[in-house]
Amino acid sequence: MSTTTPAPARVEHAMRHALSLAAHGPVTGVNPRVGCVLMDDEGGVVAEGWHRGAGTPHAEIDALSKLAPGAAHGLTAVVTLEPCNHHGRTGPCSEALIDAGVARVVYSVSDPGEHSSGGGARLRAAGVEVDEGVLRDEVSAFLRRWLLAEELKRPFVTVKWASSLDGRAAAADGTSKWITGAAARQHVHEQRAAHDAILVGTGTVLADDPSLTARGDAGELLPFQPLPVVVGSRPVPADAALRRHPRGFVETGSRDLAAVLADLYDREIRSVFVEGGPTVASELIRAGLADDFLIYLAPTLLGGPRTALGDLGVGTISDQRPLHIDSITPLGDDLAILARTQSRSPE
Amino acid sequence: MSTTTPAPARVEHAMRHALSLAAHGPVTGVNPRVGCVLMDDEGGVVAEGWHRGAGTPHAEIDALSKLAPGAAHGLTAVVTLEPCNHHGRTGPCSEALIDAGVARVVYSVSDPGEHSSGGGARLRAAGVEVDEGVLRDEVSAFLRRWLLAEELKRPFVTVKWASSLDGRAAAADGTSKWITGAAARQHVHEQRAAHDAILVGTGTVLADDPSLTARGDAGELLPFQPLPVVVGSRPVPADAALRRHPRGFVETGSRDLAAVLADLYDREIRSVFVEGGPTVASELIRAGLADDFLIYLAPTLLGGPRTALGDLGVGTISDQRPLHIDSITPLGDDLAILARTQSRSPE
Repeated sequence: MSTTTPAPARVEHAMRHALSLAAHGPVTGVNPRVGCVLMDDEGGVVAEGWHRGAGTPHAEIDALSKLAPGAAHGLTAVVTLEPCNHHGRTGPCSEALIDAGVARVVYSVSDPGEHSSGGGARLRAAGVEVDEGVLRDEVSAFLRRWLLAEELKRPFVTVKWASSLDGRAAAADGTSKWITGAAARQHVHEQRAAHDAILVGTGTVLADDPSLTARGDAGELLPFQPLPVVVGSRPVPADAALRRHPRGFVETGSRDLAAVLADLYDREIRSVFVEGGPTVASELIRAGLADDFLIYLAPTLLGGPRTALGDLGVGTISDQRPLHIDSITPLGDDLAILARTQSRSPE
Repeated sequence: MSTTTPAPARVEHAMRHALSLAAHGPVTGVNPRVGCVLMDDEGGVVAEGWHRGAGTPHAEIDALSKLAPGAAHGLTAVVTLEPCNHHGRTGPCSEALIDAGVARVVYSVSDPGEHSSGGGARLRAAGVEVDEGVLRDEVSAFLRRWLLAEELKRPFVTVKWASSLDGRAAAADGTSKWITGAAARQHVHEQRAAHDAILVGTGTVLADDPSLTARGDAGELLPFQPLPVVVGSRPVPADAALRRHPRGFVETGSRDLAAVLADLYDREIRSVFVEGGPTVASELIRAGLADDFLIYLAPTLLGGPRTALGDLGVGTISDQRPLHIDSITPLGDDLAILARTQSRSPE
């Protein structure tokens, strides 16, 4: 980093604050969560802003809007993501910062978007001092889903299952209500509401007739509902509960999961929560299309043929699919283990 | 509890100390771990003792031996287990306490042994004041293995397996070295040394040729080695590593697990560590002969046919085998989950 006024420690502190502002934004949606702090040379915070989702001002614009015209002149903008450079639903943030007379821009993570990147270069060309990389690890981890989606042009995929400690999703006859307890089931609903889409196979629709809504403790619909997506060629029955979903649903008519995910990306879906069944989950893992794993382990044993995952194409131990465990959360008597694919860590 | 001198709070404090003394004893062996505190009317500790294993003095005798003749007269003995009443390798503790002139005996848990019980009644008949039940839950939990073995006339059975997060013990071709890391493997060796016997099926012996020794970090033999027991009808090969085990081994020639366990009880085996494979583990669970489960979960996915457990006879979800999770211990990148059969909790 080149020398800047204000002092680096104050810039890092402001970046941490910008990151906490970014977290106010919605976890779902096509746009990244971004926070911005405008500071003076002494490190004082003059204004702050964050992005509230597609169609609303970007974080930089939100922060600039708090100031009277001309008041941003000579300030430093500290922003979690490289200011955008494209004319989308809002004007480019790079130009707004230049027009406002901002003297310096410090951002953490570069924008990988083919249409939106280049803001840093645009700023430099206009004579603005630009630094990047402050708190890059923290901000990259925070933006992990969005960065992966932008890089791979497919949604970030969280595969969820619930099983006994010996890895079974159901008893021999297929019954599984309820392996896990109420706290784990409520946790699932919250995770549904934190993804743009929820994906199941037609087998699950035919076997369980799930509503695929995100509901609260009292059964009420949560404010955000993910878009249900059904993969496979068998049709969704005319009387399926899914047909009453408030978002409607997508019937892909296909099991080509890479193509389904690419199509969902084009529909501005950036995160998918996969809820089954074993066949779809196993196919995604085998194809290298699973990023996070949310595994609910119930303190019980079932044995028998109904494994939560099927064949993953692991013929020998060196082909195993190593994960990194992010967290282990007790939920009533159950455990929720969040793990990620090891090879796709952003660090 | 009837009124005693010293005060109940001091008695409970002494019992907690006696329990900590008991924990100095060996976790293996035919005898329970017992601690004893001799205290005066003001609650002062006059002497303490614990049992160091079969063939050595019981805790009460150990404590009495610290005093000059006559010095125990009028004292209160606080002991974790009901004083024994039988002439075994040592004389009955009940009579030793009577002979020493102890005025009161407070014990926590009754002795369920058919030959050793009755110490409380013997003491009362001799005019000694007797109270029981102090810290019963803690002491019962501490003596859980021994109490279960005495009650069921079979060893306490800990079933261990290591698996991926999806419940597989090996890849499709049977390879499994190493699913878990060094810390988990060392933990397994320590668990071996904490059981009287280690039980495997002939299939495991033929497939893996295990040494079944308990070893330290540097590969050295730990001081205590469990007795290897092989179940099944196929013979142990003449060149098997098992034939070099320092304890020798037991070849049951049978898969009748209840009969094998009853025979081991008669051989003074009170705890068995079951290390495989899936068939033996599943048979024990199906027969209701598994008490504790030590599950090492590695952060990896394997899929495929090699499940850590097979058929448990769970046809429908209401037949599931619910467990209670005792502890979750991170070991390197792995997790060790200790769970117990729910229906056999002593509380």
